[in-house]
Amino acid sequence: MKKKLKLGLFGFGCVGQGLYHVLNETHGVKAEIKKICVKNKSKSRIIDANYFTYEANDILNDPEIDVVVELIDDANAAFEIVKKSVINGKHVVTANKKMLAEHLQEIYDLQQQYDKSILYEGSVCGSIPILRNLEEYYDNDLITSIEGIFNGSTNYILTKVFEEKKSYLEALKAAQDLGFAESDPALDVKGFDAKYKLTIAIAHTFGVFVKPENITNIGIQNISPVDLKYARENNLTIKLVAHASKRDGNIYAFVAPQFIPLDHMLASVRNEYNAVLVEGAFAEKQVFIGKGAGSYPTGSAVLSDISALTFDYRYEYKKYAQGEGLPFSNEVLLDVIVSFPEGSLISNKDFENFKGGYQGNGFQYLQGTVRLEKLREWSEWDNISVILAPQANLTPANASEKIERLSA
Amino acid sequence: MKKKLKLGLFGFGCVGQGLYHVLNETHGVKAEIKKICVKNKSKSRIIDANYFTYEANDILNDPEIDVVVELIDDANAAFEIVKKSVINGKHVVTANKKMLAEHLQEIYDLQQQYDKSILYEGSVCGSIPILRNLEEYYDNDLITSIEGIFNGSTNYILTKVFEEKKSYLEALKAAQDLGFAESDPALDVKGFDAKYKLTIAIAHTFGVFVKPENITNIGIQNISPVDLKYARENNLTIKLVAHASKRDGNIYAFVAPQFIPLDHMLASVRNEYNAVLVEGAFAEKQVFIGKGAGSYPTGSAVLSDISALTFDYRYEYKKYAQGEGLPFSNEVLLDVIVSFPEGSLISNKDFENFKGGYQGNGFQYLQGTVRLEKLREWSEWDNISVILAPQANLTPANASEKIERLSA
Repeated sequence: MKKKLKLGLFGFGCVGQGLYHVLNETHGVKAEIKKICVKNKSKSRIIDANYFTYEANDILNDPEIDVVVELIDDANAAFEIVKKSVINGKHVVTANKKMLAEHLQEIYDLQQQYDKSILYEGSVCGSIPILRNLEEYYDNDLITSIEGIFNGSTNYILTKVFEEKKSYLEALKAAQDLGFAESDPALDVKGFDAKYKLTIAIAHTFGVFVKPENITNIGIQNISPVDLKYARENNLTIKLVAHASKRDGNIYAFVAPQFIPLDHMLASVRNEYNAVLVEGAFAEKQVFIGKGAGSYPTGSAVLSDISALTFDYRYEYKKYAQGEGLPFSNEVLLDVIVSFPEGSLISNKDFENFKGGYQGNGFQYLQGTVRLEKLREWSEWDNISVILAPQANLTPANASEKIERLSA
Repeated sequence: MKKKLKLGLFGFGCVGQGLYHVLNETHGVKAEIKKICVKNKSKSRIIDANYFTYEANDILNDPEIDVVVELIDDANAAFEIVKKSVINGKHVVTANKKMLAEHLQEIYDLQQQYDKSILYEGSVCGSIPILRNLEEYYDNDLITSIEGIFNGSTNYILTKVFEEKKSYLEALKAAQDLGFAESDPALDVKGFDAKYKLTIAIAHTFGVFVKPENITNIGIQNISPVDLKYARENNLTIKLVAHASKRDGNIYAFVAPQFIPLDHMLASVRNEYNAVLVEGAFAEKQVFIGKGAGSYPTGSAVLSDISALTFDYRYEYKKYAQGEGLPFSNEVLLDVIVSFPEGSLISNKDFENFKGGYQGNGFQYLQGTVRLEKLREWSEWDNISVILAPQANLTPANASEKIERLSA
């Protein structure tokens, strides 16, 4: 017999309210909200005032509460809540990707030490059950790569820019009005949000805990009208792609815009939808598509975690436990197209393998193979647009050194 | 500690050999093949002769064998093997969709009565973990529909016909040469294979056991060059779509070809790939894409079931157990485009809502809304091509009667 769980919520914004509605409209989950801790005393609330408290300890010290559902914005405060909850004998459900990405090792250790469960399906690609599938289904598959569209608001922006010929700023505004974009748009458009999700996915795909600051994220903020024109003329679109793969005993990962052919599966993933492509030795290519943002899609993922807790579900982190932990490396070469106003400091000498370039409209284009570390440098400049080539090859830098030595 | 399972295989064809290789190349699954029962004594085998037997009882009566993996063609013989295995205290893994679709109630009862597990992820859409997700992840979501491309060989054929302008027969031959098509091509091209998979999916989506003979399946064998021309001229492609949905307290289901707009997600699902779209109240639209046929993809699904058995996994059939069992009905109207040689017996009187027609090249075209029962009748004729409209509405027939009465 399933037990009826009592929930304590932290935060009652978009996802919290989505969870409240989803919980009320379904009858399969034996769980009820007991208390909700919020910060703002003056905000009017959609449910009875008795639910609310402004004291974290009203939840953390309530022995009746089995599960703490953490849905606040502030990553540091969120981690403190998670830690105290587990120490106080409660399971935790959270969707805070920044907090998780920055504290994965501690999140893992807390669960082992206190024998409690911390679940976070809602943190990666909203409604897509990717973590559960990586944990439960792909443990026997030798996964070689995981990649896809991990951020709903940038995908919404890029879709509007391409299909409705909106300007970047108009499209960003529309995404924020719909509640898709984070309160700080830089988190989305510079690729940080996608990177946090990728960091979490890497842990469950390859059993490796990478620090997010070690992963390069290149955003969409420098994409120029000339890039859009180039895409249209070549039957391409642009997507912000998060990528991680295993090659020659290393794990490589990055987030970057990429030109995508129009007949590629990722091209048909539009608006706030996300997509995850998992490639393995046996199941081969698997794609999961679903809404990556929004109150109900994320709320439903949080509810699935709560439901799983009624069956005492825990992530097993099998690949981590099996000690497959491979080293993370940024020593990799990528095929890119770089554009920038004429007169900037980039030249063909910055390329490992220069394929050509041209100039026009005051812009200069260079195409070729570049070290990831150099791309990271460029991405911090204000006027350089870095976009991966349609079929971007990922070449471990060591391998190329070997080839150079052999041919020298 | 996981136990090491001993497996007894029935059949060693495409999927069986895939399983053998997958099992050898992975190190995460504690399972080994002890015995393989095959029919053909003269066939040469890729592994040691000691593995093989021609006596079913060598497996069924071996107390050391924990799991019977049933991978033979014959559905009746397969059901006998499954039954005897469970009665003899063994778990079963099978990918035999016809057997499962025809015996779902008995398959359920056997598991309850003998407290053993029968798993069959490989039976529905090859490598896509759709059953596991329906069981584990979507139990709290109010799912309203499940549909998609459930048959790899017809999708391969339709892809080749459209993209390489091959004839239907050339494309069928190519699919058979690659091992995608069943030994009897009618199973694939007439939509039986997709229907069996749909029947199984309905049980895990809506908790209803439908007899496959109650579900209408319209195949692709009557699609004419004129249909292809119509599709090309209107930026459409054609896919064989399996569909089931919940509407007004009934479950409706069918398999039929459908015109699909080129920018729709299903249009980008090519060759032997399958796709499953799950639509729910909260998670909204979810899509799963993966290889639906082939030795390794299906072998990897079978292996995932074996792996799950090392953790004593069982399907819970939650929706069935929760007694949500809704009645299955064929009383539904669908938007279709029907084409046939001039002079056939169909007229606009056969339509509930006739939208128009034209004739040319010796063919006649009629478009409008037709009862599913009538489509089933037509689908048995040799020269009528029935294809669902691009945005086919599904209208419960009762609802339309109500509207008619109100407007009379």
